Amino acid sequence: MGSLAAQVPDLISFAPGHPDPSTFPWDAIREAAETLLRGRDANVLQYGGTRGYRPLLESLTNVLTSRGITSTLEERILTTGSQQALDLVGRVLLDPGDVVLVELPTYTGAITAFSNVQALLVGVPQDEDGVNLHALDETFQRQTSSGRRVKFLYVVPNFQNPTGLLISLQKRLALLEWAAQRDVLIVEDDPYRDLYFPDVTTEAETRPIAADDAPGRVIYLSSFSKTLAPGLRVGWVSAPPEIASRIELAKQAGDLCTGVLDQRVVYECCRRGILAAHLPELREIYQRKRTVMVDALTSHFGRDLSWPTPRGGFFLWAQLPGGLDAGRLLPIAQAHGVIYVAGTAFFVDGTGNAHIRLSFSAPSADRIREGVRRLASAVEHARLPSSP
Amino acid sequence: MGSLAAQVPDLISFAPGHPDPSTFPWDAIREAAETLLRGRDANVLQYGGTRGYRPLLESLTNVLTSRGITSTLEERILTTGSQQALDLVGRVLLDPGDVVLVELPTYTGAITAFSNVQALLVGVPQDEDGVNLHALDETFQRQTSSGRRVKFLYVVPNFQNPTGLLISLQKRLALLEWAAQRDVLIVEDDPYRDLYFPDVTTEAETRPIAADDAPGRVIYLSSFSKTLAPGLRVGWVSAPPEIASRIELAKQAGDLCTGVLDQRVVYECCRRGILAAHLPELREIYQRKRTVMVDALTSHFGRDLSWPTPRGGFFLWAQLPGGLDAGRLLPIAQAHGVIYVAGTAFFVDGTGNAHIRLSFSAPSADRIREGVRRLASAVEHARLPSSP
Repeated sequence: MGSLAAQVPDLISFAPGHPDPSTFPWDAIREAAETLLRGRDANVLQYGGTRGYRPLLESLTNVLTSRGITSTLEERILTTGSQQALDLVGRVLLDPGDVVLVELPTYTGAITAFSNVQALLVGVPQDEDGVNLHALDETFQRQTSSGRRVKFLYVVPNFQNPTGLLISLQKRLALLEWAAQRDVLIVEDDPYRDLYFPDVTTEAETRPIAADDAPGRVIYLSSFSKTLAPGLRVGWVSAPPEIASRIELAKQAGDLCTGVLDQRVVYECCRRGILAAHLPELREIYQRKRTVMVDALTSHFGRDLSWPTPRGGFFLWAQLPGGLDAGRLLPIAQAHGVIYVAGTAFFVDGTGNAHIRLSFSAPSADRIREGVRRLASAVEHARLPSSP
Repeated sequence: MGSLAAQVPDLISFAPGHPDPSTFPWDAIREAAETLLRGRDANVLQYGGTRGYRPLLESLTNVLTSRGITSTLEERILTTGSQQALDLVGRVLLDPGDVVLVELPTYTGAITAFSNVQALLVGVPQDEDGVNLHALDETFQRQTSSGRRVKFLYVVPNFQNPTGLLISLQKRLALLEWAAQRDVLIVEDDPYRDLYFPDVTTEAETRPIAADDAPGRVIYLSSFSKTLAPGLRVGWVSAPPEIASRIELAKQAGDLCTGVLDQRVVYECCRRGILAAHLPELREIYQRKRTVMVDALTSHFGRDLSWPTPRGGFFLWAQLPGGLDAGRLLPIAQAHGVIYVAGTAFFVDGTGNAHIRLSFSAPSADRIREGVRRLASAVEHARLPSSP
């Protein structure tokens, strides 16, 4: 996507799920890095432990507690972004041919990480409040009765990538119950939790599934990439101790340790309260951008385009007007100076060509408006009878 | 090893292969980080491309050329330390049951990375100038005639971890010829190349196997961890384009990208000539430490302990006096306030209990002397008839 953007001058990209770099706490990060490097504490630039920098692991207690999750140190591992956590979870839990149940649609990075270990990804349709429970159990039964082993259900409960949807609290509990009944693990990927939009979502609604997981059935993943900065590759996983130990071993062979300067800078941002103080502002900024995009889409498309209102996070998931194909529209959109991700990338069942994922997180308000205007022109162009 | 060190006060550790933190170019790294973060170039803290920061990829040309290696941009990928490169190479090239030929002994991180993808690691004995060619071909033949597929030979040609040995130039060429004849790839892991000891090794002797690899049979790995700092997790791999593309895909699912601030800092250290200017001093420092350890060992053990003189790198590989077992000696050594790594960790055939790896890179000269004194006491204690 980066190289595409380089080819078209002034291209507006709604494609990558990048945070807005103007939100990065530049001064705090610079001051932290400078102080750490001036201090010449050998450990700042030395190999670190595979589990991560101990004080940062400890300060995750605050983060997890604020989300309602009780977890011990032995359950936690810092990872090289939460993408690495997905990769390690796949390597540790999955054998070739194992089934992973995923939402239709779901995050592409999870699809590739689990597919890379030869797992079979099977999609379950979503309702507006999350994965359909009836379809979930039916899918499970179908898979197990074909002799396959369903290892876990993968969900992004808060402001899902790509749909922006939120799983209802009631459904979260139901999923936990279902997982117990069927003896299946849940991998809960939660990078956007802090980025709820207060005008349509309360903090209480973001309560992770892991918060109600007494028996140790949930593997919980999150990250500092959306709330501090992704160029510092720091995510984490909290998993039942036995699984955490296996993840640690896999990580040791994977990269020995996560970048130590990165972890130390993140720790300073936590310790100094930078992160906590930063969150309300982040919610405000992304909520405003969401509104700008929604308003622009409404004004340009009317009822031609439909979408569930994003209740947090980075993405708006739009259904194209009848007959339009997201993949075939893309080069036309590009010629009009705007790009997005076609829906098919997020579906493990080959569908999704009527959807597009529009990311409103990185561009400025003006660019969002202009990008939507261009998208509207592209759609208009595509619907001309003469259009290829 | 870190946690062991924490339990025994004043423990001297010859165990981990850590660089000396006083050699890290602290000021240059701090200045680079500060300037980059003050500049607020959004890309410094944003997600980066999976292949790595383009100018750093380009400046690898200088590094590779100085080692005699011709390589194009499309062959290169920056990795989260060279451990990640090992992991990715294993994932991309190996299927369960494939054979990897390794030196006896070899680097533990390669053993775990390749074992994690269910490869079969088969050891080949080394001579003083590197892997024994006769044994190599015999092992290859034995494996292939048992119906197994030998995918690659893994070697650390320069100042091997753990032996400190150097493969002779003649043997490097012979390995390349052998690989062509047997249609096997070579994975050449070269993190220590710049750290040759001028009193016993010339730069010419470190010429990588990849330098003479016209047909694209060698996958070359190296790192900035030993020459700048390992806390910045930046390594790289140079591989034939088709393999590089597959490594890129695996890396994308593995961690999306290597830490961007880390890559930018490393680039600044390259661009400003910090790295190049730093190398002669590093060689001097580690050569001096090697001498301190060799002198102390000679003075305390006489002929009781034997080792090949390390010609570069971080390690001295010692054979214990007759009858002593490295694993059983370890708790005694620890009680005497010194630790090392027992040789068995480096052998894929279960042998190695008569050897210990002593790392002289991190401790100061005084600590090296004191550590060797403690080791001598431990050995003396272990040889008492009453000792367990």
